[in-house]
Amino acid sequence: MSPTAALRYDPYPTRTVDRPSLLPREDPVVWGRGTGGPLDPELVASYEDNGYLVIPGLFSPATLEEVGADLTRLAADDEVRSSPQAVIEPDGEELRSLFQVHLGDDAVGRLAHDPRLVSIVHQLLDDEVYVHQSRVNLKPGFRGKEFYWHSDFETWHAEDGMPRMRAVSCSVLLTPNHAYNGPLLTIDRSHQWFVSCPGETPEDNYRTSLRRQDLGVPDDDSLRELVRRGRINQCLGQPGTVVIFDCNVMHGSSGNLTPFERNNVFMVFNAVSNALGEPFAAPRPRPEFIAAREVRPILV
Amino acid sequence: MSPTAALRYDPYPTRTVDRPSLLPREDPVVWGRGTGGPLDPELVASYEDNGYLVIPGLFSPATLEEVGADLTRLAADDEVRSSPQAVIEPDGEELRSLFQVHLGDDAVGRLAHDPRLVSIVHQLLDDEVYVHQSRVNLKPGFRGKEFYWHSDFETWHAEDGMPRMRAVSCSVLLTPNHAYNGPLLTIDRSHQWFVSCPGETPEDNYRTSLRRQDLGVPDDDSLRELVRRGRINQCLGQPGTVVIFDCNVMHGSSGNLTPFERNNVFMVFNAVSNALGEPFAAPRPRPEFIAAREVRPILV
Repeated sequence: MSPTAALRYDPYPTRTVDRPSLLPREDPVVWGRGTGGPLDPELVASYEDNGYLVIPGLFSPATLEEVGADLTRLAADDEVRSSPQAVIEPDGEELRSLFQVHLGDDAVGRLAHDPRLVSIVHQLLDDEVYVHQSRVNLKPGFRGKEFYWHSDFETWHAEDGMPRMRAVSCSVLLTPNHAYNGPLLTIDRSHQWFVSCPGETPEDNYRTSLRRQDLGVPDDDSLRELVRRGRINQCLGQPGTVVIFDCNVMHGSSGNLTPFERNNVFMVFNAVSNALGEPFAAPRPRPEFIAAREVRPILV
Repeated sequence: MSPTAALRYDPYPTRTVDRPSLLPREDPVVWGRGTGGPLDPELVASYEDNGYLVIPGLFSPATLEEVGADLTRLAADDEVRSSPQAVIEPDGEELRSLFQVHLGDDAVGRLAHDPRLVSIVHQLLDDEVYVHQSRVNLKPGFRGKEFYWHSDFETWHAEDGMPRMRAVSCSVLLTPNHAYNGPLLTIDRSHQWFVSCPGETPEDNYRTSLRRQDLGVPDDDSLRELVRRGRINQCLGQPGTVVIFDCNVMHGSSGNLTPFERNNVFMVFNAVSNALGEPFAAPRPRPEFIAAREVRPILV
C-alpha cells in the first residue's frame, strides 16, 4: 500500500483488520432525489430498502437472440478462451466467465449503453456513469459451480480502489433462472452494512480469486446476522428479465446440477465521481479488463 | 461376481455395460391394489405417476424435538463420529450422514416402526417390509455439499443385490426445506426408467462413494431425456413433512450456502419378498449397516 493511501479516511476497512465486523453503510443507496427516470417511486423505495430490483421483460426475445448468438461465437473462439478475459471452470474445460464484453459493437456490447439500463442507473446514482466492469457469466448445466456469498464492493474497494458505494450492477438474464438451477441469491437489506473481512490480498490475487474466492469472504456470524436482519431471496425470471442491484448487496448462488444452463450478462455502472483510485488493500490495481480505470462516460 | 449370479435374468443391467442406456421399468410402482392404507386413491395415483409424494405435517413438533435431541447427542459423541456408520463432509469436519439409526429405542429409532410411515409403505408395496437402510442426513449451513443425481436402486441393485424395484424411501424433514437451502430435487416420472451406467464397482467402493459418488452416475444425455419426459421438482416443506419416494426416482440436491441447515431422517423400507441376494455388479456385499441382509419384518 502506498503511504498516501494510509492517510485516506476509509469508512470501509477490509483486509487490513484482525477480525470480521459489521459496519454501517455511510453512503446513500439512492443518490439525489431518485426521480427523473423510468422507475416509479415505489420501485425506487423498494430498491432503497432491499438493495435490488427484479424487472421482468426489459429486453425482447429478439435482442436476447442476438446476444446469445454473440456468446456462442465468443465461447467457441479459441483465441477468446485463451485470453486473460476468459475464466474456465475450476474442475473442467467450460467457459465460466468472460470479462470486458462491453467494448464491442455487437449486441452484447450494445447492452452497455442501452438506454433502458442507463436511464435506470442515472436515476439511482444521480451522476454520469461509466462501465466499471462487464462480463458474461455462464453457469453450465450438470456441473455449474456455486459462487459463495460476497459483496462486490468489498473486492472493488480493496483491490480496485473504488472509494464509495455509488455503483449499480445490472444482470440481464439470458436463460430462465429457476429456483433449482442456481439462481442469484440476495440477502435483502444486507447492502446497509459492510462486512469487514480479515486477511491480506496477495500479489495477483485475481488470477485465482475469479475461479474460487478465498479472500473477502464474509464470516459465518456476519452472514447469520445479515440474514436475521433481512432475509434470503431468489432472483428468478425468464430471459429478458433484469436484476438491478446495489454494489454492496450480499449475494451468491448455488451450483447447478440441472440440465438448464444459467447464463447472464453482467454490467456494472459506476458514478463518474466515484472513479477508481489506489486500491485500499492490495499491492497493485487489477487489470483494466476487470476494473476500468479509464473513465468513459456513457452518452445517451 | 459369482458364476451363479451371471445366470440370473436381470432386467436392470448396470456397471457391466459399455455405454449408458435408458431401460423401461419392469416392475409395478404400486404393488397389489394400492388400497387398505391411509393414502386416498388420488395420492396413490400421484405417487404412481410421479414417483413421490410430499405429505406435510405427518409428524408433530414434539416428536421432532425428541428426534432432534437424539441427533444432537449422536453428532457430539466422538465414538459415534469415529464409527464406520458416520460419514464426514469431504472438505471438513462436520458429520454428513449417520447410518443404521433405526435399531435404537430412542425417538429416531422409533420412526422405523412408526405406524404412520409403515402403513403407507404397506399400502404401496403390498407385502411385509423391513428396514433396508436408515440414516440421518445433515446438510450443514454455509458449506453443505451437493448430492449429484442418482437412483438409489441403481446402487442397491449393483452393490447390495436388491433384485427388483419394490422398496420405498421415507425422508422425514427435521428442519425447513426451503427452495434455497439445498432441498431434495426429484425428476417427476423418472422412476419409470432405469438408467444403466457403465463402469465397474471396485473393491470397498462404499468407503469413498458415500462421500462422493463416481460410479452409478447417470450420463448427461439420459438426464436430459428424463427431464424432457418429466420435469424437475423441489420437495419443500416444514419440519414434520415426509417425502415418500420410490427407490428408482432420479434425485439429488444442490449445495447449501445459507445459514439454514437441512437435516432429515431417511428410512428405506423394502418388501420382505425382495430381500437382498448376491450383488449384481460388485465383488462383495456392502456392510450390514448400509444394506441390511438380515430381514426383520416390522410388526405393527
